[in-house]
Amino acid sequence: MKRGLFITIEGGEGVGKSTNIEFIKTTLEAQGIECIVTREPGGTPLAEEIREVLIKNRDEKVVSETELLLMFAARAQHLNQLILPALAQGKWVISDRFTDATYAYQSGGRGVPAEKVALLETFVQGDLRPDLTLLLDAPIDVGMSRARSRGKLDRFEEEQSSFFNRVRDNYLSRAAEQPQRFKIINAAQDLPSVQQDILALLKSLKD
Amino acid sequence: MKRGLFITIEGGEGVGKSTNIEFIKTTLEAQGIECIVTREPGGTPLAEEIREVLIKNRDEKVVSETELLLMFAARAQHLNQLILPALAQGKWVISDRFTDATYAYQSGGRGVPAEKVALLETFVQGDLRPDLTLLLDAPIDVGMSRARSRGKLDRFEEEQSSFFNRVRDNYLSRAAEQPQRFKIINAAQDLPSVQQDILALLKSLKD
Repeated sequence: MKRGLFITIEGGEGVGKSTNIEFIKTTLEAQGIECIVTREPGGTPLAEEIREVLIKNRDEKVVSETELLLMFAARAQHLNQLILPALAQGKWVISDRFTDATYAYQSGGRGVPAEKVALLETFVQGDLRPDLTLLLDAPIDVGMSRARSRGKLDRFEEEQSSFFNRVRDNYLSRAAEQPQRFKIINAAQDLPSVQQDILALLKSLKD
Repeated sequence: MKRGLFITIEGGEGVGKSTNIEFIKTTLEAQGIECIVTREPGGTPLAEEIREVLIKNRDEKVVSETELLLMFAARAQHLNQLILPALAQGKWVISDRFTDATYAYQSGGRGVPAEKVALLETFVQGDLRPDLTLLLDAPIDVGMSRARSRGKLDRFEEEQSSFFNRVRDNYLSRAAEQPQRFKIINAAQDLPSVQQDILALLKSLKD
């Protein structure tokens, strides 16, 4: 059986990841492709428990290495229990965030050296990387006003705009370094334009 | 101010770690040494939450890398938020388990390569190691009957005796490799004899 493809959707807060993931799933399924939609951190009951530990607002300072190790603990579980078995069964996996988010948030945002992220990336993933990564990019104020309108902010969403600017810059510079895998989509456009761009990229994937 | 000493107490289930940690604390405090007693996984509110995630019985298979990363996530938090600040203030820290337990349980018990544990040990600890490690050693059946008498078993305590034999063997062989730091105490003796041995080792530490 042919291995499925692994697509990840990246981007900051409120850039429209959920809406567009739903659109991708519908598009692929209309072509007879079986898809699994999942998210990080999370994707299995244990990984979702780790997500709760990670995003919960708390008084205790969260050491940046602790946060990084928790992200990769959740990822090891998600990868081995859900992503890899699904790909092996020929299903396509669409994940709302993956390791690029760890570079963006923990390295770009928190300042953990990228080498530390890379070390754990190899530790957990070996040489597995997504087949396609769509970066939904929009100016910080656009996304944050959407995120705020959803209600109470979690430990990450509560960060300052300087943090989110570093996250965005990290995403953009890493996308520029890996143009084959990492495609930037202007998420500040109206939705039909965003989805037209996504369709073109999905088409290129099948060619 | 003189840095405090970092003492870890290791051993399998039911070897008497808690009783003897209390004895060590009382002994040191009688000599005017300020001590903090802590435990792993745990030691801070966040690290205790990670402990709960780790030890909870669950239907989902826990991937061995996930378990290992969670252990070190808890350790990064414990080390940076509690152990290192206390040592810097001149306090002695006595921890019920530390990284030797990760070698024993995750490498010895679960079969994760020791190199993977060593990689994360360096990642989280740099070159920090305990100043003294007391290994309370007893045959498996002695400890397990004590652990069972305490009530419901957690995810680790529920393992088979072959697992605990591998844990014990790993502890013993690593103690033999690092005799300067790692002292083996026969925990199958009566308590006064165990405590006499502990006193002798604490004395040697101050000489």
